[in-house]
Amino acid sequence: MPQSRNPDSARRSERSRRAILDAALGLVSEVGYPKLTIEAIAARAGVGKQTIYRWWPSKAAVLMDAFVALGEEASRDGEYAIPDTGDLEADLKLVLRATVDELNNPKYDRPYRALAAEGVVNPEMSVDFVRKLVEPSVQLYVTRLRSAQEAGQVAEDLDPRIALELLIGPVAHRWLMRTLPLTHAYADAVVEYALRGLSPR
Amino acid sequence: MPQSRNPDSARRSERSRRAILDAALGLVSEVGYPKLTIEAIAARAGVGKQTIYRWWPSKAAVLMDAFVALGEEASRDGEYAIPDTGDLEADLKLVLRATVDELNNPKYDRPYRALAAEGVVNPEMSVDFVRKLVEPSVQLYVTRLRSAQEAGQVAEDLDPRIALELLIGPVAHRWLMRTLPLTHAYADAVVEYALRGLSPR
Repeated sequence: MPQSRNPDSARRSERSRRAILDAALGLVSEVGYPKLTIEAIAARAGVGKQTIYRWWPSKAAVLMDAFVALGEEASRDGEYAIPDTGDLEADLKLVLRATVDELNNPKYDRPYRALAAEGVVNPEMSVDFVRKLVEPSVQLYVTRLRSAQEAGQVAEDLDPRIALELLIGPVAHRWLMRTLPLTHAYADAVVEYALRGLSPR
Repeated sequence: MPQSRNPDSARRSERSRRAILDAALGLVSEVGYPKLTIEAIAARAGVGKQTIYRWWPSKAAVLMDAFVALGEEASRDGEYAIPDTGDLEADLKLVLRATVDELNNPKYDRPYRALAAEGVVNPEMSVDFVRKLVEPSVQLYVTRLRSAQEAGQVAEDLDPRIALELLIGPVAHRWLMRTLPLTHAYADAVVEYALRGLSPR
């Protein structure tokens, strides 16, 4: 968005930007990515098409900014960053429970599903989605698991980039496939099973 | 499909049925579930719409039968059942590698993606998809893990229905999200990490 020295104009621009991003999220939840159009976003946001094209080159670009803004909002709402209290099990349970809450929240569930579904069949969209939305939170797990390796709480010969998938993979699978309810008890079990392993100790 | 005492008529029916299922899989890969129509399936299969409606009530029903047939074909091609050789780690690696091969095979990848994407946004489709396609293979893991518990190779206080998600969840996540390549080495690492756990032994 262009900078402006006029505070009223800047406020109007910010209001338009928010209205456009909200309209994009609402519409993609309702009609899905393939049927989303810049025209419909403009109409719902109460702005002209040209306002959108001045700031974004495509519907994909609008939508990606809308999801980045939604992700920032979700991380303000909940415990999205991974704490490092020294107790790995407690820290992982806290963050996976927060993820479960976010995925079960209708405000996030519908737009996230629209985006994930498009990523499943659209490799180009998927690359952007992973780079801007998935990979930053994946890196939080890498950091936390490395710190746990240094503290002797994770086996030092494990690759954290693979290890974290045993935590987020099961939760994402239940959410995407809707096999069984996605609950705090499930998040806790995933953390416990992943840390101690399936083999008897 | 109706039984017929006339062998020629039965052969013709079976040929039509295969053509319809193949057409449904091809079309859903190309246009996605929302744009799939009975008309287009009939045209591609070279049959009349009424032939389809005589055997199936809806496009969802045609497609589900097509996926069940595809799944049966995939299990004949590969090692889809889970062997029980007494070596749990080897048995799980074999089946997860076969799953990786199946997901990387373009013949299965595109139709499976079309179905999975629709399930992500369409709860009704998802329930059917899980009951007919996902749950039967999930139960193979439950059976194998129960047998491993009896053999003392899996901790007896674990719930196999949760434990199996640490194996299939990470593989499904990489496939659906396309975060990183889905390889045999990854399948092996998932099995090793899940069995031994992330904590040091």
